[in-house]
Amino acid sequence: MTKQKLHIVKIGGNVINDDGTLLSFLKDFSALEGFKILVHGGGNKATEMASKMGLKPKMINGRRVTDKANLEVVTMVYAGLLNKKITAQLQQNNCNAIGLSGADVNCILSHKRIVKDIDYGFAGDIDSVNASTIHLFLQNNIIPVFCAITYDKNGQLLNTNADTIASEIAIAMSDLFNVQLNYVFELKGVLRNIEDEKSVITQINFDKYQQLVEEGIISEGMIPKLYNCFEALKKGVQKVKIGDASLIKKTNNLYTTLTI
Amino acid sequence: MTKQKLHIVKIGGNVINDDGTLLSFLKDFSALEGFKILVHGGGNKATEMASKMGLKPKMINGRRVTDKANLEVVTMVYAGLLNKKITAQLQQNNCNAIGLSGADVNCILSHKRIVKDIDYGFAGDIDSVNASTIHLFLQNNIIPVFCAITYDKNGQLLNTNADTIASEIAIAMSDLFNVQLNYVFELKGVLRNIEDEKSVITQINFDKYQQLVEEGIISEGMIPKLYNCFEALKKGVQKVKIGDASLIKKTNNLYTTLTI
Repeated sequence: MTKQKLHIVKIGGNVINDDGTLLSFLKDFSALEGFKILVHGGGNKATEMASKMGLKPKMINGRRVTDKANLEVVTMVYAGLLNKKITAQLQQNNCNAIGLSGADVNCILSHKRIVKDIDYGFAGDIDSVNASTIHLFLQNNIIPVFCAITYDKNGQLLNTNADTIASEIAIAMSDLFNVQLNYVFELKGVLRNIEDEKSVITQINFDKYQQLVEEGIISEGMIPKLYNCFEALKKGVQKVKIGDASLIKKTNNLYTTLTI
Repeated sequence: MTKQKLHIVKIGGNVINDDGTLLSFLKDFSALEGFKILVHGGGNKATEMASKMGLKPKMINGRRVTDKANLEVVTMVYAGLLNKKITAQLQQNNCNAIGLSGADVNCILSHKRIVKDIDYGFAGDIDSVNASTIHLFLQNNIIPVFCAITYDKNGQLLNTNADTIASEIAIAMSDLFNVQLNYVFELKGVLRNIEDEKSVITQINFDKYQQLVEEGIISEGMIPKLYNCFEALKKGVQKVKIGDASLIKKTNNLYTTLTI
């Protein structure tokens, strides 16, 4: 039996931070046909809120360390403010959204990151995704909207990377669906020349990825980001697309597609 | 066909404000057999958070007025912090909870309260409850946990009284279930003598209610609270119980039962 298509779309700060951009994206997401799931990051609202409350962000090696007070802030902002705002705006556009954290219906189980060199605090590394409940929702025309909070089954909520959440959900759902994973970020795709926003490399397979890394065209943060995409492809995800907020528009044809 | 029993339990600040009391209540709720729904108020965390952010609570006639900044705070605290904490702790006790606002799966539609003498700001008055989706959850062993945020289908979230949410859900579900509505508050029930916490009036019907109001035994805030319970009973709810956090324990037999 041919599997049905499932779109998983991850958005981050560049879409969330501006109300107009967000609303416009949510209209496009609502118009996207077929089965779909949205995963959203946090944007700058958590930092803003923490600062209002007199908390200072704690960073080690450029990564946020989540202490108890900051976990409260991200739980409030990601699972409360942003997740419900996005859900309400999708409902306004007749997309039957349900906002979820990993704790809801036991959707995403994780464990507190094990301390090696750095103690990241209440950061979660994902162990499993509850594909059957997500499937139940999709079958009933309910569109899951995940924020970047998971939990450990012992009552502890954990701050979790939204890219990884999207990727783990995509892998878990690929037994049941033909999964297309869409990463929305600030550029139109992977660029050959960072100064030319139209120099999008439209197709990259794993061999080409390795070649582009050697040539220095793919560098820094894009190396692990794309590596993780290829891992998802190896584990059953059909296709990964990377592009800007117009990625999911029917009229858009400038983005990067990754395949094995 | 005999309808199956559904317990709807509403908890407020006195259960939520203390971590130990909350955890103990959630264990009892998890142990409660059969179909069930939890509705929670906000407790003092929203006021505490607003104050940390330098916001002053705005009150008119003892009722909170929800301006835009305070709506953000209650959305964060009710739908984020408290709802996810409660959901995670229920999951820890093997109760398959899902945290919901009114916007999620279009569960509770409301409108912004119409301004007469007082502008309550972003306060919601409930129009309808999506009984069929709540029924779908219950049939699939998913336990809905509602916070006191609803929405207006135009993307606007609204702060909504948790007692009313519990009552409106109870009424909406009474076509499908034999509904028992449980209000947990700070006392063991309606007291004959406010100075004697054991002087619980165990059974009150509408005639007796009117008599107790005339005698001044039921007074002030309890008059409308109980009146609303009788309205729910008239609209199909089978039974209303009022008591403290031990209300839902099998071993508890001291509480007030309201029937028509």
